[in-house]
Amino acid sequence: MAEKLLTREKGFSEWYVDVVLKAKLADYSDVKGCMVIRPNGYAIWENMQRVLDKMFKDTGHRNAYFPLLIPESFLRKEAEHVEGFAPQLAVVTHAGGKKLEEAYVIRPTSETIINSMFSRWIQSYRDLPLLLNQWANVMRWEMRTRLFLRTTEFLWQEGHTCHETEKEAEDETLKMLEVYRAFAEDYMAMPVLAGRKSDSEKFAGALRTYSIEAMMQDKKALQAGTSHALGQNFAKAFNTQFQGRDGKQAYVWQSSWGVSTRLIGGLILTHSDDAGFVAPPKLAATHVVIIIIGRTPEERGPVREKAHALAADLKKAGLGVIVDDDESKGPGFKYFEYELQGVCLRVELGPKDLAKEQVVMVRRDTRQKDFVPISQAVAHAEGMLDQMQKDLFAKAKKLRDDSTFEVNSYDELKAKADAGFMLAHWCEDPACEARIKEETAATTRNRPFTLEQKPGACVACGKPSPGRIVFSKAY
Amino acid sequence: MAEKLLTREKGFSEWYVDVVLKAKLADYSDVKGCMVIRPNGYAIWENMQRVLDKMFKDTGHRNAYFPLLIPESFLRKEAEHVEGFAPQLAVVTHAGGKKLEEAYVIRPTSETIINSMFSRWIQSYRDLPLLLNQWANVMRWEMRTRLFLRTTEFLWQEGHTCHETEKEAEDETLKMLEVYRAFAEDYMAMPVLAGRKSDSEKFAGALRTYSIEAMMQDKKALQAGTSHALGQNFAKAFNTQFQGRDGKQAYVWQSSWGVSTRLIGGLILTHSDDAGFVAPPKLAATHVVIIIIGRTPEERGPVREKAHALAADLKKAGLGVIVDDDESKGPGFKYFEYELQGVCLRVELGPKDLAKEQVVMVRRDTRQKDFVPISQAVAHAEGMLDQMQKDLFAKAKKLRDDSTFEVNSYDELKAKADAGFMLAHWCEDPACEARIKEETAATTRNRPFTLEQKPGACVACGKPSPGRIVFSKAY
Repeated sequence: MAEKLLTREKGFSEWYVDVVLKAKLADYSDVKGCMVIRPNGYAIWENMQRVLDKMFKDTGHRNAYFPLLIPESFLRKEAEHVEGFAPQLAVVTHAGGKKLEEAYVIRPTSETIINSMFSRWIQSYRDLPLLLNQWANVMRWEMRTRLFLRTTEFLWQEGHTCHETEKEAEDETLKMLEVYRAFAEDYMAMPVLAGRKSDSEKFAGALRTYSIEAMMQDKKALQAGTSHALGQNFAKAFNTQFQGRDGKQAYVWQSSWGVSTRLIGGLILTHSDDAGFVAPPKLAATHVVIIIIGRTPEERGPVREKAHALAADLKKAGLGVIVDDDESKGPGFKYFEYELQGVCLRVELGPKDLAKEQVVMVRRDTRQKDFVPISQAVAHAEGMLDQMQKDLFAKAKKLRDDSTFEVNSYDELKAKADAGFMLAHWCEDPACEARIKEETAATTRNRPFTLEQKPGACVACGKPSPGRIVFSKAY
Repeated sequence: MAEKLLTREKGFSEWYVDVVLKAKLADYSDVKGCMVIRPNGYAIWENMQRVLDKMFKDTGHRNAYFPLLIPESFLRKEAEHVEGFAPQLAVVTHAGGKKLEEAYVIRPTSETIINSMFSRWIQSYRDLPLLLNQWANVMRWEMRTRLFLRTTEFLWQEGHTCHETEKEAEDETLKMLEVYRAFAEDYMAMPVLAGRKSDSEKFAGALRTYSIEAMMQDKKALQAGTSHALGQNFAKAFNTQFQGRDGKQAYVWQSSWGVSTRLIGGLILTHSDDAGFVAPPKLAATHVVIIIIGRTPEERGPVREKAHALAADLKKAGLGVIVDDDESKGPGFKYFEYELQGVCLRVELGPKDLAKEQVVMVRRDTRQKDFVPISQAVAHAEGMLDQMQKDLFAKAKKLRDDSTFEVNSYDELKAKADAGFMLAHWCEDPACEARIKEETAATTRNRPFTLEQKPGACVACGKPSPGRIVFSKAY
């Protein structure tokens, strides 16, 4: 019999790691802080990529690829940027059997190397807007790592755009944040708050950073995507100028935005349960597993035939399907295994079902069990998957809404630090933010666009606050 | 007016670089030997990936992702492997602000790091075959680089498989070579010879290497893809064992196989001409550009409407379409520009065409010009694209067949070293191979499966040869 999974109640962190390893989503490697993404996990990433890539292209972006290595001197051209990233860099000092004259760093993000190209490609306002995206690996040396959520190397996409005016760049920054929000909610079934980060939490080198923030099942926040208004900071550092409509030279205005394989961690922490991984149907690799039941070849033969016919129909409807005809393992073992791996629907098909021209269909998340005429199986599966997608979102949203509080004093904030999202007044002084982080481990997540802003008094110091912001412990 | 392209006659190498740069396929970067793949080039890579990825999945492979960095000691576990790759390694010695205890190398290929995981994942014959593929960047420090064809960093896929028996591993090795052959010929319209490489040209660590070899327009060979029978070499180095059907422990038998962004270079060198890039329709990013012609708003209005309606119909048929309505540039400039960038078909649409309810359709490669009733435009475009795909292949095949010779003496081999593929007897002694390379710059490409093997005498030393092999200068 297979080994049972740890439970969330016994230890949420340990449960998370156990799901990732036992569902074969990822594994530890011999390289410090780097993981291996196994086929079950990579299939989720491929589905995320397919959906996001289409959203980027539909909003006018094209993909390109820039070098992995960045001359060390490039990072130093933007003071805040190098300060932010220097502690996390991996450095190539030798190559081709020789010490390099100038060291290279492995990209932690690509604003600098990309601007070195933008400055060559852009001459005139006619070259703008320039809307690029890159799918790539990046590296940030981390002290404490966690599979998917924080790894030394991760996979991501980074959008980089150039515009004539600050407004156009800001519009782009917010448009791509909205793309992330829609993706998180409509595909990942993960409700998020879209809003602006505080200055101390912004990207090193940006004017403003916006994020989407989700609540995990343990009520901690996960920053799931960021979009940055870079202003002209990198344009000035790399001299990315254009001749404007007025004939004058000007620096471009830029945005950059990214999501990463961290999203897979968010998906797991949002939906999975004590039986293992739960994948929202819109991103699942396998929607349906058909398990052939029968003790003898005489029993299994006709069942097998019907199972493959049904699988073909389900595939025609665009679903990912596995037929399990392995006689060396019993049905109970298989139910356990496919639940662990997050297959959305299990179809049980045996001689008794065949006689009744029906199948048994079981939903992964609720274990709802339907007896369905075989002739209606495809439509029924599609209906169950639609409902599962909606229910996963609703359940996650309920948890978040039920775990979001207005907090009106410092004592209350300390008391509720583990209870979820705290909406609290803050004077915008980094000192108060730092004190709260130090004493409660809660950080500012963002100022959600949907949160009405009314003046009040900072929970930490009592000075005037422009409106509430979300505080929470976070991954 | 735009700057004219260099011609092939004046200098093939210079023409190649000029096409890559002016068609905006790639650009040089500030990182030694690394290129930037621009959107026009990356779109070709995306199409290649889409087709290949489906072929890999249809043959039972799943994608995964392994770390970029490999502990230096891993490479040393396989003696031939480290010897082959050591001179090309980029080495990370510092990370997170500290000197590392053990240096990491940036993967030049991933057999070692992947075997370190295989050895954990594989226990029994039930875990076999294990069929994985990875899309990734790799790095090999090169002395002389050339855009797409030889760059320090490149993008590729690397398949890695484990099998119970040597025969199964060999079958897989050859199956994936056949996938590459089919891809090169059916999609890239690039005829190739599939065959076995000589021992001195095989992958460092493999038992046998197979390749597909194409002939470029300058009659030099391009190795376009390789598939390796790794035997048990890496399995022994990493202790990748399984319990066999007989209950005994055994090392797995492995294959690995890869193609890279080098293919884009091959595509350019096979089909492009003095007007710029020529893309085979099955991999082209843009199949049709519709150019709106007209001097006044009154003229352009109805043309524009018809152009967008036609574009919608073409897109519905699965084609990539651009409508060019830019009034600041004349048609002549645009024809030049889209030919340069390799758009397969140009559709000219002006008020006169509209009056006749026709469009003018011009094929990129032959400049064949058809006047087509608008109602038949989609079907006609599809027909022209089909024919173009076939003609590109036929033209490339004719060049290769016309430039392939039997060569029966060393003098003849020296005389024909620039004339194409030379089929010559060779005794299989590496010394003769080395001498020929030294004196003529021709190397053994492969022993094509389609080339009947009859004994003869080595062109270099006169000793017995088992059959002819292809010698050629190569990229």
